[in-house]
Amino acid sequence: MIKDISNLQAKLQALVLSQQGLHAQGQVADYIPALAEICPKKIGVSIATIDGNTIGAGDYKIPFSIQSISKIFGLVMAMNRIGDDLWQRVNMEPSGQPFNSIIQLEWEKGIPRNPVINAGALLIADVLTSRFSSSKLAFLSFMRTLANDETIYIDKHVYESELNHGNRNAALAYLMKSFGNIEAEIPELLSHYFTQCSVAMNCEQLANSLLFLANKGVDPKTKKVICSARDAHRINAILSTSGMYDQSGEFAFSVGLPAKSGVGGGVIAIVPNYGVICSWSPPLNKFGNSVIGTNLVSNIAQELGLSIYH
Amino acid sequence: MIKDISNLQAKLQALVLSQQGLHAQGQVADYIPALAEICPKKIGVSIATIDGNTIGAGDYKIPFSIQSISKIFGLVMAMNRIGDDLWQRVNMEPSGQPFNSIIQLEWEKGIPRNPVINAGALLIADVLTSRFSSSKLAFLSFMRTLANDETIYIDKHVYESELNHGNRNAALAYLMKSFGNIEAEIPELLSHYFTQCSVAMNCEQLANSLLFLANKGVDPKTKKVICSARDAHRINAILSTSGMYDQSGEFAFSVGLPAKSGVGGGVIAIVPNYGVICSWSPPLNKFGNSVIGTNLVSNIAQELGLSIYH
Amino acid sequence: MIKDISNLQAKLQALVLSQQGLHAQGQVADYIPALAEICPKKIGVSIATIDGNTIGAGDYKIPFSIQSISKIFGLVMAMNRIGDDLWQRVNMEPSGQPFNSIIQLEWEKGIPRNPVINAGALLIADVLTSRFSSSKLAFLSFMRTLANDETIYIDKHVYESELNHGNRNAALAYLMKSFGNIEAEIPELLSHYFTQCSVAMNCEQLANSLLFLANKGVDPKTKKVICSARDAHRINAILSTSGMYDQSGEFAFSVGLPAKSGVGGGVIAIVPNYGVICSWSPPLNKFGNSVIGTNLVSNIAQELGLSIYH
Amino acid sequence: MIKDISNLQAKLQALVLSQQGLHAQGQVADYIPALAEICPKKIGVSIATIDGNTIGAGDYKIPFSIQSISKIFGLVMAMNRIGDDLWQRVNMEPSGQPFNSIIQLEWEKGIPRNPVINAGALLIADVLTSRFSSSKLAFLSFMRTLANDETIYIDKHVYESELNHGNRNAALAYLMKSFGNIEAEIPELLSHYFTQCSVAMNCEQLANSLLFLANKGVDPKTKKVICSARDAHRINAILSTSGMYDQSGEFAFSVGLPAKSGVGGGVIAIVPNYGVICSWSPPLNKFGNSVIGTNLVSNIAQELGLSIYH
Repeated sequence: MIKDISNLQAKLQALVLSQQGLHAQGQVADYIPALAEICPKKIGVSIATIDGNTIGAGDYKIPFSIQSISKIFGLVMAMNRIGDDLWQRVNMEPSGQPFNSIIQLEWEKGIPRNPVINAGALLIADVLTSRFSSSKLAFLSFMRTLANDETIYIDKHVYESELNHGNRNAALAYLMKSFGNIEAEIPELLSHYFTQCSVAMNCEQLANSLLFLANKGVDPKTKKVICSARDAHRINAILSTSGMYDQSGEFAFSVGLPAKSGVGGGVIAIVPNYGVICSWSPPLNKFGNSVIGTNLVSNIAQELGLSIYH
Repeated sequence: MIKDISNLQAKLQALVLSQQGLHAQGQVADYIPALAEICPKKIGVSIATIDGNTIGAGDYKIPFSIQSISKIFGLVMAMNRIGDDLWQRVNMEPSGQPFNSIIQLEWEKGIPRNPVINAGALLIADVLTSRFSSSKLAFLSFMRTLANDETIYIDKHVYESELNHGNRNAALAYLMKSFGNIEAEIPELLSHYFTQCSVAMNCEQLANSLLFLANKGVDPKTKKVICSARDAHRINAILSTSGMYDQSGEFAFSVGLPAKSGVGGGVIAIVPNYGVICSWSPPLNKFGNSVIGTNLVSNIAQELGLSIYH
Repeated sequence: MIKDISNLQAKLQALVLSQQGLHAQGQVADYIPALAEICPKKIGVSIATIDGNTIGAGDYKIPFSIQSISKIFGLVMAMNRIGDDLWQRVNMEPSGQPFNSIIQLEWEKGIPRNPVINAGALLIADVLTSRFSSSKLAFLSFMRTLANDETIYIDKHVYESELNHGNRNAALAYLMKSFGNIEAEIPELLSHYFTQCSVAMNCEQLANSLLFLANKGVDPKTKKVICSARDAHRINAILSTSGMYDQSGEFAFSVGLPAKSGVGGGVIAIVPNYGVICSWSPPLNKFGNSVIGTNLVSNIAQELGLSIYH
Repeated sequence: MIKDISNLQAKLQALVLSQQGLHAQGQVADYIPALAEICPKKIGVSIATIDGNTIGAGDYKIPFSIQSISKIFGLVMAMNRIGDDLWQRVNMEPSGQPFNSIIQLEWEKGIPRNPVINAGALLIADVLTSRFSSSKLAFLSFMRTLANDETIYIDKHVYESELNHGNRNAALAYLMKSFGNIEAEIPELLSHYFTQCSVAMNCEQLANSLLFLANKGVDPKTKKVICSARDAHRINAILSTSGMYDQSGEFAFSVGLPAKSGVGGGVIAIVPNYGVICSWSPPLNKFGNSVIGTNLVSNIAQELGLSIYH
């Protein structure tokens, strides 16, 4: 599909230009000071394809806090580690809640709705903390291997800030523990979770790191099997129904790609058999998704006819 | 993809045989007497392709009550009639509720989560009742045209039974009306809604009637535009995130096709650029989806590699 | 306790004066036009004692729409008619919901939390409609007997207005019917319910009509047994925990009397072994209770030391 | 009212005998091992009156874990310490939830419904932890003074057990902290809370310790002001609407006294201007209230005509 790379490159640059000035339509995440400090005007976008091309425009080489995009990588590690036992402890249904809610966790007796809402990602953090001797190092190592870049790092400033404002996540974790669905000690689990969220990467690295999901589990660059084809399918399904918080349905409706956003302003979208789009712009809409990041993915998907629903 | 029709025909027959005896794993819908009377051992399946082939196995020519599958057709009619105004009155997000709930409707002030849960379908019924001089005839006429079969009928026995057990749907409708989101008189609206649900069709007819959704809105047999390409996309997206009730996430996870089920035991799945699968078997699982119907679609999708998520 | 009647009379007049000008602190109910038309400056208060005295001040002889205060009288009629069977169909617990909610009714499978929230009063209306040949006449007759005044009437203007804006009550009733907890046809039940609500009475009449609750079930004027001592006790208990909507706890905390309010602006409070206070002022606070009406009862209770909690 | 003490003593003994064999109607609390070890057949009851009499029957001198009855004493300490500021941080409404729920705390943005549900008592624990240099010692000292018994102790075995099974309470506390309604560090707060719950006292001691609530805030033995008359009134109101968990309405309906239960099997009831009843029997009903303890209070209240609602 990606016949004319230089043409696409030009399109990306035009797209980035077209979005400048729209950052006032959103709000930079301010629940932790470290995120609130980011310049709201940053805009980056990158496309990596399974046939080996990577292009980008704007601030696509500037690292940002990947936040909830890290949930995908944690999920892959947990699926690889404990297999289908995972699905006894977390469901794979959309949450249908206006915000990431403790109410549903109570109703469903400590079983999170899916692995890409906070409760589910905390459960995944429990699996990793309990099953890896050093889960934080294992996570960082996994990210560096996928991105083929040993300089990827944990932003300690963000990490400390998260830790100091993590009371709601602690509440979710303790509630799951009260239902017997958490093994680890909560402080250790939270430490892993906030470490994951605090990884800094840029658009280009993220797009390349996720190519295996567009390629039936195999990293097209190294031919290494990152996960099974079945698990790549499953992750794409989960991202399609639940990856964009409570705007997931609308994103499917108007864009039509498996995707995940983070409150750092990043958005990734998987295009099966084609590649990965990653965009970044800090201001968020009321659902917690990057306004401009969503626009960029939407425009690229429409321009290139990438939706999975037609 | 469908290269060898006779081979596929044989596979369907084998699949139907393989499912016999599994009907005890589910329960025939018994909330209305007319549905409870159905023989639980019926099994039918049909595939229609956009290149003009239709095959089937088992009871694929026996009509059954389409029930909630009718929500797709009502939605198409309403989208065609009032355009994007529709999305001011109904959302397109998955519901995330264990059952089709009045709770969410109260929380979200009378705006249904999506058009394929009951509340949403009642809102669609309001649009049709208010905008067509005779919405029931218009609906039946639409179904007959799509199926190219003037014998398609309303099962009056089912209709009467629905009407006598429609108190929950009445509650949903009156609650929406209390929020100002319903125009019609409720008895008229319910009469339309139950008429829709009571249409009887067989697997072959349903599969052929929905080919436009696999073909960017165009009926491949008649070349007639049933809806816009954009609306076909949108409907497939909604069916992907919300079509199988509160099992939609699991269905995406394990099967990976836009689909819709009805409590009459029917299941339809859209395969973009390929065709439509329709299966039927009355016993339902706890989510209200046909046990065997779901198995059949799942097996066919895996066998032919039809998922949209890889 | 009421030693000096003329002194108390003077106090009531002073109290009414002290509240003038406070009507802007609330909002007259506007969900139906007929209530919105009331002059917001009306203030009335009356005290009737079991030893036969009645005093009043302000607009205490002007009839107003009793609205939810009617729930007490309907409850008495239903308790007398079907005895303890009633408590199989309605609970006696406080609701703890910010507003009279359909959510709780769904959770608790069609069993209303108590008989003085809307759902519970609709269930009572079902009992009356089903067990009396002419429940509306029976209700009116009961009111006239209690007040010893044959001129008490149904305000037809209010009744029609209620009927035209009764969609939420219809939703509650149909939801209960879907759970099998309603016998009557909903339109008939609603007609009874809105008739009840539309009775017009003044403060003096209401205070006198409720003396049996302060006197172990016996009307002190006629010596007639209106209900058993046990049922008078039970009703006072329900009014204490649930009579003032979601402000019931605060009212107990600061005033300490069994009480009931209506959106017409009336408030009644039972003082066991002493008498009944009835106040009236149309503007309501956010809980639906009369601002000034509550103030008046509170001041009288404190002045005379009437609380049941010390 | 308590004219014939020896007669009443005989009645208590007969009542205790009448309840033997009913312990199988309930279940001893088993969420923590230390409580599950209690002999289910223990039955004790005591009445203390404001005129200085104390009587008892059965195991009324055997100490048990006071558990949630401690919430009353914590509340008194907090009201005395910070006055009406307390009511900015906790409400005084009944909760209306089937169990002590995190759902309501989320809805109401971290403001507990009242101080005698777990969330509210944790908030009180926050006040005490933050405002006393050594809140645990202060609490124990308060209990010893009220009971006039320096041997009252913390059951360390129960305390440790609580601490090891306190995940749900931790979840409630962290959720409130995420809303900014908790000052203390959660582990410290929980340590105080579980200390409170682990105080061991017998029926006689508890009945005497609470006499101030029946006597407008003044301990009738020492004439010491324990709290203001207004606060005694308020506490009795809260206990009336909310003291018996989600059975509070039924308890008001059938018994009619301000009361509080604990999962250790204790029940206390305040009789304004008369005295206090305390009963104890470990097996609990589904609401968490002692089956026999409730029976005993109910029988005594009816026998002596003590209800506040007639």
